[in-house]
Amino acid sequence: MSDLLVKNVRVLDGDPTEILIRQGRIVAIGTDLDGAGAVVEDAGGRIAIPGLAEAHTHLDKSLLGYPWYHNDVGGGNLMAMIDNERQMKERLDLDPHVQSMRHALQTAAFGATMIRSHVDIDTTGGLRALEGVMETAEKLADVVDIQTVAFPQSGLMISPGTVELLDEAMKMGADLMGGLDPCGVDHDPKGHLDAIFALADKHGKGLDIHLHERGELGAFSMEQILDRAEARGMKGMLTISHAFCLGMPDPARVNPLLERLGALEASIMTTAPASSPAPLVKQMKEYGIHFGAGNDGIQDTWGPYGNGDMLERAKFVGLRSNLRSDAEMYMALDVCAGGGAEAMGMERRELKVGSPGDLVIVEGVAVAHAITLHAPRKLVVKSGKVVARDGATLMDMP
Amino acid sequence: MSDLLVKNVRVLDGDPTEILIRQGRIVAIGTDLDGAGAVVEDAGGRIAIPGLAEAHTHLDKSLLGYPWYHNDVGGGNLMAMIDNERQMKERLDLDPHVQSMRHALQTAAFGATMIRSHVDIDTTGGLRALEGVMETAEKLADVVDIQTVAFPQSGLMISPGTVELLDEAMKMGADLMGGLDPCGVDHDPKGHLDAIFALADKHGKGLDIHLHERGELGAFSMEQILDRAEARGMKGMLTISHAFCLGMPDPARVNPLLERLGALEASIMTTAPASSPAPLVKQMKEYGIHFGAGNDGIQDTWGPYGNGDMLERAKFVGLRSNLRSDAEMYMALDVCAGGGAEAMGMERRELKVGSPGDLVIVEGVAVAHAITLHAPRKLVVKSGKVVARDGATLMDMP
Repeated sequence: MSDLLVKNVRVLDGDPTEILIRQGRIVAIGTDLDGAGAVVEDAGGRIAIPGLAEAHTHLDKSLLGYPWYHNDVGGGNLMAMIDNERQMKERLDLDPHVQSMRHALQTAAFGATMIRSHVDIDTTGGLRALEGVMETAEKLADVVDIQTVAFPQSGLMISPGTVELLDEAMKMGADLMGGLDPCGVDHDPKGHLDAIFALADKHGKGLDIHLHERGELGAFSMEQILDRAEARGMKGMLTISHAFCLGMPDPARVNPLLERLGALEASIMTTAPASSPAPLVKQMKEYGIHFGAGNDGIQDTWGPYGNGDMLERAKFVGLRSNLRSDAEMYMALDVCAGGGAEAMGMERRELKVGSPGDLVIVEGVAVAHAITLHAPRKLVVKSGKVVARDGATLMDMP
Repeated sequence: MSDLLVKNVRVLDGDPTEILIRQGRIVAIGTDLDGAGAVVEDAGGRIAIPGLAEAHTHLDKSLLGYPWYHNDVGGGNLMAMIDNERQMKERLDLDPHVQSMRHALQTAAFGATMIRSHVDIDTTGGLRALEGVMETAEKLADVVDIQTVAFPQSGLMISPGTVELLDEAMKMGADLMGGLDPCGVDHDPKGHLDAIFALADKHGKGLDIHLHERGELGAFSMEQILDRAEARGMKGMLTISHAFCLGMPDPARVNPLLERLGALEASIMTTAPASSPAPLVKQMKEYGIHFGAGNDGIQDTWGPYGNGDMLERAKFVGLRSNLRSDAEMYMALDVCAGGGAEAMGMERRELKVGSPGDLVIVEGVAVAHAITLHAPRKLVVKSGKVVARDGATLMDMP
């Protein structure tokens, strides 16, 4: 934390002004501010947006820094992709700490000041991935806030020994309990969900469950999840990631799910996928559901896409939800910034007095332009401290 | 046209080699080529891909070069967007020639050597837009091949006088007859389609019809289009743009349409939209339908998206069709390059001896990487002539 005065800066689409951050919080926005003792940065008339929130990614599995991975598996078969990844991680002897440092620093260079990372826990890799990502979270504490989710990527009921490892992961300090397609991957929704809810109970933590199951199957699994969360009164402690089933075309089937999610103050995380039905921005807003977005894995064995850029992700959110007007583009940005922070259970980032001193200076003549352009960030500030400049973090990448 | 030797260049994911272009065509690929008299370029070990094909855009309506347009219309109401645009074009006194020069040059800088542009023909603007775009096509003949489609953006049957203007447009030399949502916009499918097919007949040209209508309505309109094209034996002369209805989930309804499109050697153009059902790459391939992609309008009154980059569009095509493996990423690229050229009725661009000498030198260590990165192009070559370097065309933008 430090004191910072940003001069000649536009707050979103406003006129140039100044922003003063002291002790890690925005204390004043206006002209002729008293920046005594503060570091001074001139934004050159550029736009400031709040610190961005990468709300769904996998820091432990990117191949950043490795020779390009030539993918011959494709996207048709989920279990083939899961098995291929587990094998490739062993063969390449991927170091989860080094990879998560690379991935997190790249994400921070694009302006994210918050990251929620799922971390693979399985009987091949054990707790190694979590150890590596937690080491990264500690080393980067001044650069980006990192949450970890203990994630049974290779299944739970179909992979004996995993429940015990997840218990260990929570003892080590994972922030949330994870889960994955209780029907589609584990083929035992009751077994899977009872196990992960019991672990969340035991450790007093929230849940963030991957749910790729589509249509009726996904809706069924979501009901099983909601039943358990409601019975435990888990207000604000449940996240469902992807939730493709909410993109079903039948409001009579979907709206009751949305009502229950809203009443639980639950969060939905999306990548704003182009190839799947998906939850939409206005739909989440209407039901008071917290909505965050993420890049998911980037440049890994799953595919060549992604780079950690949450401003480009705001473009994808806008494209997916068919947002076009200025007011709608602010919504897309909010999903990737303040709204995403809330969805992660963190304090909302906004450019107003009293908010955390996280902000990003971006290129572009208007917010909508900045989103569609997503050029390298001019400056990234975390708690009043400059952490990246001209697209690169100040800390060297390993 | 000129002679060019590109050294130290990788053909897609191959090893470094040389490409020799003479008289506008690739005459040799290999080592120690005799480049006597040819301009020599060193690609620095980078990858070459074929010239890109922007197969669906609107060169006459971008606001590039204007102050940023603040959009308060949004995306909910098609007729409101159409009416707003017509009014804004008048208010801003948009010069279709200047705007199309800006738009086409930016698209060329991103590596497109072919563009198909729909051009608004309506009773407000008359033929002014077509005059402007045709002037651009002439001026840029050495930079990018531009096709024009006479496009009734504001409707045909609901806007008396438009049919006569379209007839004039075809006399002026528009390359294709356009059309637009015969039910959704014109509310008179028989009237609309009879009119545009008659004009296409009269001028001996093909058709490229915008069809946004979804589901059953779109399928109905498509059947009316196919009936007319089949009756006239219009093999290779029909394009349907967008064709959202082909994304319907019922193969029993969709596949007969695909069979008819394939038998007609028809083309489908897509933007690979994230917010609509849409035709998919493997589906088009399976039925032998030519498939091209485009950015549609860029930075105009319709929305803030788009920049003319057909390499980024290949990423969108990949994301929309859930393409991930190397082989699948080549398919995504082909839709935006050689395949797109074929869909436009132009000669297929490929990096092999005998093909047109259009190529693009891109950044990235593999083709899939180049697509996901879509960094500024190192070099763009049209018919053996360098037309853009380091992301900028050699010709100044007006």
